[in-house]
Amino acid sequence: MKIIDGGITAPRDFMAQGVCAQIKNHTKKDVGLIYSKFPCSAAGVFTTNKVKAACVDLSSVHLSDGQAQAIIVNSGNANACTGIQGFADAQLMADYCADLLHIPPRDVVVASTGVIGVQMPIVQITKGILEVCHSLSDYGSAPFAEAIMTTDLVAKEIAVEIELQGIPVRIAGVAKGSGMIHPNMATMLAFITTDAAVSSDCLKQLIKESADISYNMISVDRDTSTNDMAVIIANGQAGNQLIKDSDSDAYKFFKGALDFVNTTLAKKIARDGEGAKHLIEIKVINAANEKTARMIARSISTSNLTKAAVFGSDANWGRILAAAGYSGADFNPYLVDIYLGEEKVAEDGMGLQFNEAQAKEALEKDTVEITLDLKTGPYQATAWGCDLTYEYVRINADYRS
Amino acid sequence: MKIIDGGITAPRDFMAQGVCAQIKNHTKKDVGLIYSKFPCSAAGVFTTNKVKAACVDLSSVHLSDGQAQAIIVNSGNANACTGIQGFADAQLMADYCADLLHIPPRDVVVASTGVIGVQMPIVQITKGILEVCHSLSDYGSAPFAEAIMTTDLVAKEIAVEIELQGIPVRIAGVAKGSGMIHPNMATMLAFITTDAAVSSDCLKQLIKESADISYNMISVDRDTSTNDMAVIIANGQAGNQLIKDSDSDAYKFFKGALDFVNTTLAKKIARDGEGAKHLIEIKVINAANEKTARMIARSISTSNLTKAAVFGSDANWGRILAAAGYSGADFNPYLVDIYLGEEKVAEDGMGLQFNEAQAKEALEKDTVEITLDLKTGPYQATAWGCDLTYEYVRINADYRS
Repeated sequence: MKIIDGGITAPRDFMAQGVCAQIKNHTKKDVGLIYSKFPCSAAGVFTTNKVKAACVDLSSVHLSDGQAQAIIVNSGNANACTGIQGFADAQLMADYCADLLHIPPRDVVVASTGVIGVQMPIVQITKGILEVCHSLSDYGSAPFAEAIMTTDLVAKEIAVEIELQGIPVRIAGVAKGSGMIHPNMATMLAFITTDAAVSSDCLKQLIKESADISYNMISVDRDTSTNDMAVIIANGQAGNQLIKDSDSDAYKFFKGALDFVNTTLAKKIARDGEGAKHLIEIKVINAANEKTARMIARSISTSNLTKAAVFGSDANWGRILAAAGYSGADFNPYLVDIYLGEEKVAEDGMGLQFNEAQAKEALEKDTVEITLDLKTGPYQATAWGCDLTYEYVRINADYRS
Repeated sequence: MKIIDGGITAPRDFMAQGVCAQIKNHTKKDVGLIYSKFPCSAAGVFTTNKVKAACVDLSSVHLSDGQAQAIIVNSGNANACTGIQGFADAQLMADYCADLLHIPPRDVVVASTGVIGVQMPIVQITKGILEVCHSLSDYGSAPFAEAIMTTDLVAKEIAVEIELQGIPVRIAGVAKGSGMIHPNMATMLAFITTDAAVSSDCLKQLIKESADISYNMISVDRDTSTNDMAVIIANGQAGNQLIKDSDSDAYKFFKGALDFVNTTLAKKIARDGEGAKHLIEIKVINAANEKTARMIARSISTSNLTKAAVFGSDANWGRILAAAGYSGADFNPYLVDIYLGEEKVAEDGMGLQFNEAQAKEALEKDTVEITLDLKTGPYQATAWGCDLTYEYVRINADYRS
């Protein structure tokens, strides 16, 4: 596997673009489009929030046949809590886009991100759709990545090439997270393009499994958005033999690369958490089962106390163990060893006379590694988060203005 | 019911004291004792964290017979994650205290709060126990309240008197929470004294039910401590007829006053959240069942985004509805009305053209009231929290130093 340039337009026959439709302001791009020259098999995973944006409901219906050819996205307005008008607006976005691209409306996936509870500025959005459809480019990955940003400080893209049965196959992804991953509904969005030939059933399983170890293992705060989605579309133009069996070697090989793409994007999102200074990587190893490992890793990654301690480079391992304790997972605290970087700070659930300087050094690294060894089995899980800073509070104290 | 002076020593034949044993530093009180001149029926509720301090395990055993006569507490060290030595230290605290008070060791409840993962300074603690046992006072409520504080800015006490079948009965409570209620294991502790005669079975049910609508409905952050406990002891010296039937009027009347004591302390804890500027009171009304109301109220009270929005006086009702959405509760978001104070900001899950000035005024009050009307049934629940501020981050970035 090698990392390549070109982002989501690196896979064959994908085009993209991003334009400024003046939804956010007069300069920032806010409408983006991904388009495949050929129909794609497609699948997605969506927010579990009971309060869902109109585009989430529409896109999950549109993807239910396992097909798509375009993804239209706007930032600046989430189209959530907008009632019947919101549904009409989401439908209009799909219809208008389909009309301009000469494809069926249900092959268009719609995503929105931004402020919630405000009706869509639909005149600007339709103008944006017109412009973005007419300016699609084989090299439009970067402007698309820019168009979906909200409070994100950096665009998040990755593309890789693998060789599948002798044929080069490309997988690429773009994501946005904003400071807190699920920020004032600034929402986590991820779009994956690939020129591999993959059945829609396999895609459905792939995106679910891969999201579970990537996007579902990051947290900047614990607030889940009304608009979160991760969608994959595959146009088959690489010419590989169709991947249609989830037990096949090709499936597993493809999944390895897809997992890399998704975890890379997930880590970029966590690192760019609102106000974050550090990426925190929490590994739970030697657990009795995967669920236990996941629950503990996620609980630690969302602990305000742990996040604030990392911000302050305070080797407060007690908070880490306590966050494991209230995770709801079943484990024996009297067996747990805790490491900050390489430094073992607790053993069998008790503090050690550890080297404070070493621990502090581990906490000052760009990526802070926390490891819990449960010493009870062969399973493990990794979660990512970021530290809790003054800047997070500042950004979120007045998001709307 | 009237509010009276005297704190936990207001009920007949209770004594208390707090002394400085130099656990925290050379000036702050850090060992406290509550003592009843007569044996008490007693009950408690304890942290659900899988990682429990030694004193939690010991005290739940000591209370299993429904009896107690003294409560010894230290602040500055939580005696959590301290292994076998921790259990020995907790046991020693009970034994030494019992010896000095001439009561059985198992009638002593032990509580600790402070930094976790550090062995107890047992020499100082025993010195403190000796001093506190010899200086017990009928007016020692205030020094006790001070001795259990950690990052708390104010002591938290309340005492009330009710008339039970013509006989004056007193109920009093003292609590500590520190900034975040469950702060760096700064732990929530509450101790209730009463001179009512109540059977231990009734007390067990009373403290559980009352904690469920008070301490279990507050949150400063979402981190649950290793040391949380709420304990009630009743010495029967008021001379009322024994309350032994939970269906009786006396039980219900007593519970009303106990609920007032506990919710008063709970609100004092939430208001004194680390760095908090506002108490946030979230009422969920007209729910289909109590569980739904509780889940939604608690989810909103723990949402970082909502807490940061209150800090910034930002009428961002979308975050409130989204926090309801990810609570796990089953409800119809398209029916929900949301109020900030008296100002209705959303109706049927959609934003209204509300008065921003009125909403801002509601958000700037000392107590910020958020109401969600689910419009589906007769149940309701109230939760309390506080805003998320720069100060919270500062306090928790370096708690140990």
